[in-house]
Amino acid sequence: MIDVPKKFYNIQSVLEIPPPTGDNLKLLPSIFPKGFLGQEMCKEKFVSIPEEVRDVYRTYRPTPLVRAERLEKFLDLPNGIKIFYKREDVTPSGSHKINSALMQAYLAKQEGFKRIATETGAGQWGTALSIACKIFGLDCSVYMVRCSYNQKPYRKVLMRLFGAEIFSSPSKLTKFGRNVLKKMPNTSGSLGIAIGEALEDTIKHNDTVYALGSVLNCVLMHQTIIGMEVKDQLKEIGERPDSMIGCVGGGSNFAGFMLPFVENKMNGENIDFIAVEPKSCPTLTKADYKYDYGDTAKLTPLLKMFSLGYDFIPPAIHAGGLRYHGMAPIISALIKNGLIRAKAYDQIEVFKAGKLFSEIECLIPAPETCHAIKAAIDEALKAKKNNEKKTIVFIYSGHGLLDLKGYEDFLDGKLKTS
Amino acid sequence: MIDVPKKFYNIQSVLEIPPPTGDNLKLLPSIFPKGFLGQEMCKEKFVSIPEEVRDVYRTYRPTPLVRAERLEKFLDLPNGIKIFYKREDVTPSGSHKINSALMQAYLAKQEGFKRIATETGAGQWGTALSIACKIFGLDCSVYMVRCSYNQKPYRKVLMRLFGAEIFSSPSKLTKFGRNVLKKMPNTSGSLGIAIGEALEDTIKHNDTVYALGSVLNCVLMHQTIIGMEVKDQLKEIGERPDSMIGCVGGGSNFAGFMLPFVENKMNGENIDFIAVEPKSCPTLTKADYKYDYGDTAKLTPLLKMFSLGYDFIPPAIHAGGLRYHGMAPIISALIKNGLIRAKAYDQIEVFKAGKLFSEIECLIPAPETCHAIKAAIDEALKAKKNNEKKTIVFIYSGHGLLDLKGYEDFLDGKLKTS
Repeated sequence: MIDVPKKFYNIQSVLEIPPPTGDNLKLLPSIFPKGFLGQEMCKEKFVSIPEEVRDVYRTYRPTPLVRAERLEKFLDLPNGIKIFYKREDVTPSGSHKINSALMQAYLAKQEGFKRIATETGAGQWGTALSIACKIFGLDCSVYMVRCSYNQKPYRKVLMRLFGAEIFSSPSKLTKFGRNVLKKMPNTSGSLGIAIGEALEDTIKHNDTVYALGSVLNCVLMHQTIIGMEVKDQLKEIGERPDSMIGCVGGGSNFAGFMLPFVENKMNGENIDFIAVEPKSCPTLTKADYKYDYGDTAKLTPLLKMFSLGYDFIPPAIHAGGLRYHGMAPIISALIKNGLIRAKAYDQIEVFKAGKLFSEIECLIPAPETCHAIKAAIDEALKAKKNNEKKTIVFIYSGHGLLDLKGYEDFLDGKLKTS
Repeated sequence: MIDVPKKFYNIQSVLEIPPPTGDNLKLLPSIFPKGFLGQEMCKEKFVSIPEEVRDVYRTYRPTPLVRAERLEKFLDLPNGIKIFYKREDVTPSGSHKINSALMQAYLAKQEGFKRIATETGAGQWGTALSIACKIFGLDCSVYMVRCSYNQKPYRKVLMRLFGAEIFSSPSKLTKFGRNVLKKMPNTSGSLGIAIGEALEDTIKHNDTVYALGSVLNCVLMHQTIIGMEVKDQLKEIGERPDSMIGCVGGGSNFAGFMLPFVENKMNGENIDFIAVEPKSCPTLTKADYKYDYGDTAKLTPLLKMFSLGYDFIPPAIHAGGLRYHGMAPIISALIKNGLIRAKAYDQIEVFKAGKLFSEIECLIPAPETCHAIKAAIDEALKAKKNNEKKTIVFIYSGHGLLDLKGYEDFLDGKLKTS
């Protein structure tokens, strides 16, 4: 069995990422731990994982890389077409998010902070940060996007179990939240709004830092522990990937999974990286590449990214983790360079793939993860039709056991398209 | 790493279990597959696991045996006191139940049946059987105890995802269910009632067999795959158990875990087997050892067991899987012989232990499993007080991600005692 990696992989060592800009840059030192900002700017190829964090990783990593044998059989794939998935659902939080949450809580603790404020969309990130804060002895406040807050009541219970306090966003606790509520009392909320609230909360409190579950360079870097493991695991079984597929909201699970393979592609290896997003929030497939705010309150620096606009509020689809107006600058740059391609799917076809996967592989994927599954199935069937050999690897970013309301709506025929 | 066992262990080879009796014995051939009845009476020490079933086991077994290092540290235990837990929450159904569900679905399929009817308390068994039926291509109907049906809405979604149909029990579908509803329209239901309904359904349909998630000799035998693995896993790390602890409803997870160790105790080894039950359903700690029906409709043969009476309806505690009036004849006989001892806990102290475990070990246990955790913690603290060395192993029978309503009530101070 492979060991838990000792280092994160840093794509900034080989790829120029346009730096953030704007007046809000000056706010950063009051928002993030110094250690975090250091990692964000770092250009070294490998960044050591602190042993205290690696000790926690070791309790659940390496996560399994599994061959989808029953799915292959069900799809009647010829021998040369293989599907593998990397299981990040087996972490304590049920998704990949905890990989970065642990690093961020550790860095905050190191510098003596007492509390972390954050936002959460589907609740995966909030759960992960609650656990990480509990492990490193920090308080945790979570602004949860209103539509997820209402769709996923048990997510809240889970976060409360780990000692976090949860607010439905927009909330009355922040000036920005109150303004939004005045203008749009019935809004479903958005990640952009929730980030704005968590940032305002952080700026108001000296003992508090902010943590973000995706988008930023070093958050994506923390997730490369996934791809580093996949590299070792594929090597161990003598395989190499032709397609690597993941869903994208802010981009962190997909990036963590595929970034360690980008240099292989730069060096001539033929790997098809596919980022999958919902049609209702088509950041990569419909938006422009430009400098924009990461939040609706305009408190973040300007980030160079594909963005539907900082004030875009996507429909209340069940894949709450993919409801983000922007896209990580790293993923955006790789799209721009032609190293990654993007696909978008409708919510109903995505749940259909998720139901099929549940039945066949006996695992219930998160609605976000269903996007990757749908694309993996499509790629496999395309290869079959074209008589191609292909090894498809996708990232199974999280389980859907706390997203069963979405599946219920799907089974009851109540889901809306897009 | 150890391999998945090739055989089940059969305690009937060394322990005389009083046979079932009564007029209903004649119904058995119309209720169960012949292969199942053959296993139920079998006296061989080892029973081979069919390769088709072992292939499915291999997708999730062996399950991990984990040292509770953080819990030990939190409890400030001296070096000589160790706590291990066997993780049956990592199965596709989230609990140990699928180990027997797969065998039972396989046996039904072998003999050409098209459908399985069953009952479920907390929903763990119903979920497991839904998955097993999906894998072996059978239809599945589940009578779900009313209080769980209402407390655990997402359990239903999960079973529906695997293609099962679910009825709240008592239902209007059976004569027995209609009678109960007439007499007690507001009943919370019970496993005894739900079993009665599933049996009536089975007897009415020729293409249907019945499956039971616990109690019967061979159901417990199917679960010994757990204890066989634990034996190999402990040997691998050079440990032996002083205490083996599990929660008991019908008795299957605890039995599967400890039965392979009973001969060690018979041969003079000092192992303390502790069966933990809820105070509100005190089968082992308060009831008589007698012949009684396994269901409220009196359709089963008479079983020699500890029983609170076939018409006993326990309070609607959240540990729905432990709300059974009787106890497996095998566990009952072992209690009677003094080979196992029993403890009972109140629901609130049990959830308190579950919350502590969640925070420390970062896993949310099922309310049933919390009973084992509470006892394990108590045993560890007792050993610490008495300056004893002790290796405690308990069975972590399932996760509580679909039981968060119980935790919510606990956090909100709404849980009733007992």
